[in-house]
Amino acid sequence: MTGQWGQKAVKEAKPYTNVHVAATGEADGSLKLPARHTWQLAPNAAYLHYTPNETIGGIAIHDIPDAGNVPLVADMSSNILSGPLDVSKFGLIYAGAQKNIGPSGIVVMIIRDDLLARPTGNIANIFKYSAQAADGSMLNTPATFSWYMAGRVFKWLQRQGGVAVMGERNRAKAARLYDYIDGSGFYSNPIEPSARSLMNVPFRAPNETLDELFVKESEAAGLLAPKGHRSVGGMRASIYNAMPMAGVEALIAFMQDFAKRNG
Amino acid sequence: MTGQWGQKAVKEAKPYTNVHVAATGEADGSLKLPARHTWQLAPNAAYLHYTPNETIGGIAIHDIPDAGNVPLVADMSSNILSGPLDVSKFGLIYAGAQKNIGPSGIVVMIIRDDLLARPTGNIANIFKYSAQAADGSMLNTPATFSWYMAGRVFKWLQRQGGVAVMGERNRAKAARLYDYIDGSGFYSNPIEPSARSLMNVPFRAPNETLDELFVKESEAAGLLAPKGHRSVGGMRASIYNAMPMAGVEALIAFMQDFAKRNG
Repeated sequence: MTGQWGQKAVKEAKPYTNVHVAATGEADGSLKLPARHTWQLAPNAAYLHYTPNETIGGIAIHDIPDAGNVPLVADMSSNILSGPLDVSKFGLIYAGAQKNIGPSGIVVMIIRDDLLARPTGNIANIFKYSAQAADGSMLNTPATFSWYMAGRVFKWLQRQGGVAVMGERNRAKAARLYDYIDGSGFYSNPIEPSARSLMNVPFRAPNETLDELFVKESEAAGLLAPKGHRSVGGMRASIYNAMPMAGVEALIAFMQDFAKRNG
Repeated sequence: MTGQWGQKAVKEAKPYTNVHVAATGEADGSLKLPARHTWQLAPNAAYLHYTPNETIGGIAIHDIPDAGNVPLVADMSSNILSGPLDVSKFGLIYAGAQKNIGPSGIVVMIIRDDLLARPTGNIANIFKYSAQAADGSMLNTPATFSWYMAGRVFKWLQRQGGVAVMGERNRAKAARLYDYIDGSGFYSNPIEPSARSLMNVPFRAPNETLDELFVKESEAAGLLAPKGHRSVGGMRASIYNAMPMAGVEALIAFMQDFAKRNG
């Protein structure tokens, strides 16, 4: 549980199953990952769930956790397709489309064949992975436009060189932005460097008054949605696949100018 | 339970509640509505659910059933916005967008204030109407494009004169088509006249060979999706709000020509 999406996953699962929190970064304000040796995995768990990328806090688990013989489940809503991924390590991957896949309205799910039969029990068809798979994900009328657009995005992604190229670009974009922040003497990012998100970069100016001014002025300059999530404040740059390096450079140019005028 | 959508509603509800079927048209092949005096309502039911329009069979309940003091729940996926509606008679109305509202991906729900608190019990937030309402239907990222397009459709609908005008047009379109079918001496519709759908008009040629030929030739002539649902066969004209009278006239012109050539 490394941030707010992990916390929500725990909260929403509780009515249905006995949730055991194996590890949490809460004591450190979710700014660090809990060290691997502190994790208390339940060997008889039905699955181990984690959130590889926390969009609000901007923290990421870059290495795939070793869950032993417990199926590994990941909410990849905000990092799927951001780079190569060894899908064979997972029991189930799910991802809302709206970051790297396409318009909101669909969820992509990658599930190991033997897990299709779960959940068992007397539940509506719509909640059965097996029924969804048997009907080609068209058990009910799906969000056709989102699906169509996801297909267009997949083709675009292939033309770019696929996830390998996206991974290189995303690492380069993130490195450029974090390097600038760390060396600026003005802005700061609070996440331990090895766990910094490649997709969401929260940052702050030296005080809240300047944060507010930054948000106002950067929006006026045409930089979209610079405001950080209300629960953490400050600013946040979301640099998903669709954001080119030129967008990162435009942000940094504004940040440099803002720091010069207010430093 | 007047058709396949009613049957599905019963099937999918069974894992969660004690389903009592108050009335079914199954004995008549779902070609007639069960007479009101045969309904066996459960006076202590949590709600009475019905499907005002069955898209596959083409049967409709045009009068709002009197459910006594049991909340009335309706699946209006295929008839919402097709004419004026006294919403106050319902406890809950739900409708998939993809017929008269906009692109698939969202469900519109109209719910009486006092029913927002249901269901009670320990369930995930996403299943609580109260939580959805409290967050303005944005508890999770909704299907934004479908939502936006629904808004455009609502504005278009208002420019047409609203649901009153749509109701007049839909009655005129359906009357024109049923009148032609009944008088053709070639085509037939099997539903009792007072329960015929205004949205979905199934019809047949004199035999299955001619049905197949009709589907093939009408598609070649540019009439889209003329085939009936595989469970009933024959043809089906779906004449939702977006279908103008000119589309009905084009269909009838083709039907006349086809009957002349094959009668």
